[in-house]
Amino acid sequence: MIHHNAYTKSIAAILLSIALVPHTQAKQADFMHNTVKQATTIESLATVNDWNQPANGVWITSIGDMSQELRYTDLAAEPPRIERLNTLGDPAFPFEADAIRYSINPDGRLMIRIPCGPDEKLYGYGLQLDKVNQTSRVLELNLDHWGLGGGRTHAPVPFYVSSKGYGVFFNTARFLKVYNQISNRKDATQRPPEVDRNPPVDEIASQPDKWQANPMGDSVEAAIRGSGLEVILFAGDSILEVVQRYNLYSGGGALPPLWGLGFWHRVHAHHNAAQVEAEVAEYSENRFPLDVIGLEPGWMTKSYPCTFEWQTKRFPDPQAFTQGLLDQGIRLNLWENPYISENAKLYEDMYPLSGSHTVWLGIVPDFTLPEARQLLTDQHNQDHLSIGISGYKMDEVDGYDRWLWPEHATFPSGNSAEALRQTYGLLLQKTLYQDLFKKQNQRTYSLVRASNGAASGYPFVIYSDSYDHEQYITGLSTASLCGILWTPEIRSAKSAREWLNRMQTVCFSPMANLNAWASGVKPWDFPEVTDAVRNVIELRMRLLPYFYSSFAAYNRDGIPPVRAMILEGGFENAGATVVEGELDGETNPYATGEIIEKNDQFMFGPSIMVAPFYQEHATERSVQLPAGNWYNFYTGEFVGNNTSIIVNAVELKDRTPLFVKEGAVIPMFSEAPLNSKAAKGQDITVRHYGRTTGRFQLYEDDATTFDYQRGASRIRTITVNANGNFDIQTEGSGPALFGRINHVEQMTK
Amino acid sequence: MIHHNAYTKSIAAILLSIALVPHTQAKQADFMHNTVKQATTIESLATVNDWNQPANGVWITSIGDMSQELRYTDLAAEPPRIERLNTLGDPAFPFEADAIRYSINPDGRLMIRIPCGPDEKLYGYGLQLDKVNQTSRVLELNLDHWGLGGGRTHAPVPFYVSSKGYGVFFNTARFLKVYNQISNRKDATQRPPEVDRNPPVDEIASQPDKWQANPMGDSVEAAIRGSGLEVILFAGDSILEVVQRYNLYSGGGALPPLWGLGFWHRVHAHHNAAQVEAEVAEYSENRFPLDVIGLEPGWMTKSYPCTFEWQTKRFPDPQAFTQGLLDQGIRLNLWENPYISENAKLYEDMYPLSGSHTVWLGIVPDFTLPEARQLLTDQHNQDHLSIGISGYKMDEVDGYDRWLWPEHATFPSGNSAEALRQTYGLLLQKTLYQDLFKKQNQRTYSLVRASNGAASGYPFVIYSDSYDHEQYITGLSTASLCGILWTPEIRSAKSAREWLNRMQTVCFSPMANLNAWASGVKPWDFPEVTDAVRNVIELRMRLLPYFYSSFAAYNRDGIPPVRAMILEGGFENAGATVVEGELDGETNPYATGEIIEKNDQFMFGPSIMVAPFYQEHATERSVQLPAGNWYNFYTGEFVGNNTSIIVNAVELKDRTPLFVKEGAVIPMFSEAPLNSKAAKGQDITVRHYGRTTGRFQLYEDDATTFDYQRGASRIRTITVNANGNFDIQTEGSGPALFGRINHVEQMTK
Repeated sequence: MIHHNAYTKSIAAILLSIALVPHTQAKQADFMHNTVKQATTIESLATVNDWNQPANGVWITSIGDMSQELRYTDLAAEPPRIERLNTLGDPAFPFEADAIRYSINPDGRLMIRIPCGPDEKLYGYGLQLDKVNQTSRVLELNLDHWGLGGGRTHAPVPFYVSSKGYGVFFNTARFLKVYNQISNRKDATQRPPEVDRNPPVDEIASQPDKWQANPMGDSVEAAIRGSGLEVILFAGDSILEVVQRYNLYSGGGALPPLWGLGFWHRVHAHHNAAQVEAEVAEYSENRFPLDVIGLEPGWMTKSYPCTFEWQTKRFPDPQAFTQGLLDQGIRLNLWENPYISENAKLYEDMYPLSGSHTVWLGIVPDFTLPEARQLLTDQHNQDHLSIGISGYKMDEVDGYDRWLWPEHATFPSGNSAEALRQTYGLLLQKTLYQDLFKKQNQRTYSLVRASNGAASGYPFVIYSDSYDHEQYITGLSTASLCGILWTPEIRSAKSAREWLNRMQTVCFSPMANLNAWASGVKPWDFPEVTDAVRNVIELRMRLLPYFYSSFAAYNRDGIPPVRAMILEGGFENAGATVVEGELDGETNPYATGEIIEKNDQFMFGPSIMVAPFYQEHATERSVQLPAGNWYNFYTGEFVGNNTSIIVNAVELKDRTPLFVKEGAVIPMFSEAPLNSKAAKGQDITVRHYGRTTGRFQLYEDDATTFDYQRGASRIRTITVNANGNFDIQTEGSGPALFGRINHVEQMTK
Repeated sequence: MIHHNAYTKSIAAILLSIALVPHTQAKQADFMHNTVKQATTIESLATVNDWNQPANGVWITSIGDMSQELRYTDLAAEPPRIERLNTLGDPAFPFEADAIRYSINPDGRLMIRIPCGPDEKLYGYGLQLDKVNQTSRVLELNLDHWGLGGGRTHAPVPFYVSSKGYGVFFNTARFLKVYNQISNRKDATQRPPEVDRNPPVDEIASQPDKWQANPMGDSVEAAIRGSGLEVILFAGDSILEVVQRYNLYSGGGALPPLWGLGFWHRVHAHHNAAQVEAEVAEYSENRFPLDVIGLEPGWMTKSYPCTFEWQTKRFPDPQAFTQGLLDQGIRLNLWENPYISENAKLYEDMYPLSGSHTVWLGIVPDFTLPEARQLLTDQHNQDHLSIGISGYKMDEVDGYDRWLWPEHATFPSGNSAEALRQTYGLLLQKTLYQDLFKKQNQRTYSLVRASNGAASGYPFVIYSDSYDHEQYITGLSTASLCGILWTPEIRSAKSAREWLNRMQTVCFSPMANLNAWASGVKPWDFPEVTDAVRNVIELRMRLLPYFYSSFAAYNRDGIPPVRAMILEGGFENAGATVVEGELDGETNPYATGEIIEKNDQFMFGPSIMVAPFYQEHATERSVQLPAGNWYNFYTGEFVGNNTSIIVNAVELKDRTPLFVKEGAVIPMFSEAPLNSKAAKGQDITVRHYGRTTGRFQLYEDDATTFDYQRGASRIRTITVNANGNFDIQTEGSGPALFGRINHVEQMTK
């Protein structure tokens, strides 16, 4: 079984068992249906009333026996940030006493039932590519190579937030099946009324309501098959605060090295050293910023399955090659999948530590075993880190069923195939982060194609083989609700316009990644938009101080650096369109309706809203401005408050639609550095938008090591008032990363 | 727990435990890879070596404890037909001793492993709408409202047949996850060789093969979570013989009443008695055959949930209405779903016999309980059968998750929600067939939207809300491999051509069903094709003697009346196109290839092959003629042998493309009766095709009762030689159903 981390044990020691006092604040009454007293009338179910509270606004319980169960928090990057959690206020327990119920079925299904009112909206459940709102859905939260609507995804995080200001985390590495406001129990007093679908004409008037294909349920019911199920509740004054608590309990958000936020280019899978060097030179010739080169499978002697050993026919001197790039400020990232070839030096030692089945004919290490992690990290340290490798792209840890191990596979640790599947991406993040990079005091920013619960602290970004631009934008929102980083990577395009639009999206995401592994494409391959593409990459580079500080806030306070609009005030439900279902015997026999929500815009850092052009909205689109004043990023002009506007690519001169909040303070470079190395020490200009006083916390550290965890960081708090006067207060004694703040530009005239 | 049927116990008593002798016939060596000795080298797994043989070519084993498990055979319509099974020869056990292995995992997963060679093709797994060949697929055989490719379907029968002449039936009402030639165990000696996907140029030549996204596995591995798993093996000299054994072990195929094979029309859901009567009169005026009228939900006082009670505002005198139709030879079929309204008389008594959750707010009876079945059948007998109702359409017993009970629901019998979901359609077929109709000695032909294993004996036809014409045709093939009847029902069309094409398909299916519940459409609503539509319905009516006898062969010998081409000799693999995968970074990153097979033609009865026009093949298509001589049904002309031809709607004068086997003998009416009542006693003409002697077994009984099970049937064997001379031998003393055989037409001049 998995070895619990030392910190988990120490946290257990400080858990306080609290007696729950029935909760009577008016605010909480909203949770219940208007027509019933409370949701505690399911007499057939047992009551959960044993909650521990490790920090303000966090409560933990479990049903069954957790001793043999793998929990996501056991695999978190860092221990819970109890001290930061306790800075967030002390909200009340968000349910009535006895409201949460459970059952343990004879066939081994453990079910927990969380009451949920008919007007509540539920968000989250990991990286969902189709919708932010998961109300009235059944989800199978099984790790898989993307899928829409059913819960199977690269990161099926079993965590949801309610519009009522609480969140529920099912802390179990099991396949979880969740019924969101779907199930109506026959003994529930708050069942919706029966409606005849086919009444005679004279009875239509007396019907209580229209018949519905999916009558709203009064709860979330979630079940696993396993011996125990742990549930963690998070409360907050806002959805954002609930998400912050989830992230802080998961160890705080990831803090990448500064270079991770520059521009990435993954070269064609068959490139050799000379071809890579030529491509890097082209970047320079074309004056395009570049921070990271990614090598795809061809760098290895065999793939797939893999050896993790250099293919010297393509890379005769890996050390000199890597160092040559580092000298130009370019980092190297290596593609891998974790399935080991019989040609690998690791094979023989790893064989007894691997599962019963192969993946692509490679053995599958059981990374819950410390010995297996040790074998991998020893080899990686010697062959990769010691010569200057900066990170990995850990591919294909996500399914599908037809290439992953079967669910009945066995592993030497005794952990189930199911638990391994849910955690394999996490286990590799843990292995690389804790056992490899952190031991070298070297930060990484890497890619992984699968993640799951409590992953907030991992500096790994998820990507996908899917390629729908709208879904890629939606992913930026859903990832932000569950401690996940997502890149809407750009791989190719059918037109110059698509190329520019995708480039604009990816440049305002956690990782600006061009993945040319199959296409071999370069940023300047669509000449009509080359200047506009360079312009948006340069804008990302100019915003590095702003964006790096946004990640610092993620690390320190759990505020996601790129995030869904529902985490902002004043946006909830804005832009949603209700479409009534029309009966159609061929295509819609249940006359199922739909609520179409506006998931095509998102926040980048604390103040900038991004509304990319995409697909049929290639050059014109609507943007929903939340309550509050909003300004044009480029001109500072007021554009609206709590309204919908149309933006147009021509008017924007082919720049990304960006809107800035009232009072925003945005630190930028006036010129784009060619990479993050060149950014160090560069002076900063501050922009101020709107009429009110605003403030920004500019974070700095050495940008590459873990010394910041031992206090080696500083924050310069920049305050700007309506007149453009500014003030700077410095906290902390860490190293300076950027230069002077030499100018404040008052954008709104 | 479920009450086992008396017959199951009696069968158990006659099971013979046999000692397995290692099997050495040359034929069997094909099962194993050429490169290895045998598939018995998985030392990590236990060996299954305890097989019972209840009949020739049938072997049963189980792992774990079956005492609390629900088996499909416990729910079969009729007991196994041991005497008929033993008429089929005595094939050897199809595997080497010790070849079949199993494991029981600590997390409760029971897995069984059946060896499978790389050249074997696997067919079946129930009603799959996309493909007949299920090789190299992972399937989750969970009952659901249709889906493609993943195993979730209206009838996810856990039974496959191999091209090598054996079949495997997983006799368990559990969700079954099957890996068909997918999983490679690391300790298997027959693993395919590793292939580098990205070799340097100078290593490409030395690669053993092309890299494959899905390297072929050497077995079928199937697993459940439960306490026991029973597996039944069927052998045979052909795929058809394997399927026959499956059907005979499941009690023999269903024998509908003759009226079930006529034309069906389901009227608009809101029709009242007068409107129905007017529609029936229109059939007569337009000279269209009609046997059955189906009423959709509006006939009840409430739906959904349901009351099962007559809505007297629409049907003031149900008995007179039903009798009025019967007097015209028209049967009445009632729509239902089984979820009971609080307005139903049954509600109160059924409440304690129902599960924890509602479906569409109706309670869900636990039909594994005899008391629940009794309540339903008492009410149905009194309110429906006693006034002349002939059958039901049992809707919505199939999911989706968002309307069915959740997987953690509980039921008073103690059976799991999973087992209830897998069997709910079966349980209703059992209830209506055994407890309702059979007790009245009245045959039914009915509809149900979910079925599963061992259902061959149930006279229930499956239908779907899906509506893709090609998928509907494919369903006719896949259903035939697993004891299922399927109707590609016609509901509406976007053009006259589509209307005609769909009508031609449905008229050569187990049920010629026009379902106008939403559209209110009538057969003559596309005037340009009215004559052609009438023509094909009339052809079906003229073929009633042929088709009814085909069902009798299903009942007696397990030969499906409508069936996949692979059940014929000479067709295997014909028409398959191999499409190599092209690498595409946007849409096909694994360069996954595809084998496109010809699933758009099928057999109707023993001699007629149907190749409907559909979709982009609306007026012209290719037809694959298997080995053997084939003739044009209409003209008797020779069309080809083991070849592909093109057929064209103009040349066929808008008739269905039909092809007849060498030597076929087809009994028909020369004029189409307006319904099956009018068919009784009508004289028969016999067609003969080709140059060789042929024969047909014309089956007769009273066409409506179960007296045939007690010997009241007869068979007239018609033999026709090349000169058109014919001979008739009569066996059995049952009643005459049809008139004289008065003419033989030699079609091939």
